[in-house]
Amino acid sequence: AGDAAAGKEKSASCLACHGASGKVSVPMYPNLAGQNAMYLEHALQAYKSGGRSGGQAEVMRAYVSGLSDADIADLAAYYASLKP
Amino acid sequence: AGDAAAGKEKSASCLACHGASGKVSVPMYPNLAGQNAMYLEHALQAYKSGGRSGGQAEVMRAYVSGLSDADIADLAAYYASLKP
Repeated sequence: AGDAAAGKEKSASCLACHGASGKVSVPMYPNLAGQNAMYLEHALQAYKSGGRSGGQAEVMRAYVSGLSDADIADLAAYYASLKP
Repeated sequence: AGDAAAGKEKSASCLACHGASGKVSVPMYPNLAGQNAMYLEHALQAYKSGGRSGGQAEVMRAYVSGLSDADIADLAAYYASLKP
């Protein structure tokens, strides 16, 4: 399982679209706060591997392309830990 | 925008995995309650069009393949209306 505290430190690039607390201000983006960590980890891996296309998927792929499996697990743990 | 009440009536097939109130019991699935309607609509359309692959995407594609644009908008409105 990921480390939520480490995930918070890695989340700087996520804030602009997903909000400082994982709640978005622009409705085209998903809220992340309180989402299941396992699902978040799957989604990030899917963006990284090209399993998602269309919409903002290319943007997400660019953001996650440099993340390790541990980075992804940490980010998933962090957003799962936030109050929805 | 979709009709949340109509969406509720169309949500019978969603409950097994996404929960009666849009909160899952199995962590591999995403919570839907309180998610942004615009994002939910995008995600359902992406599953339908094949824009998502891997994981449960084929299962989702099967579920949404028979849904109209109006059905998808109604379901998105319904889950967005639920308390996260």
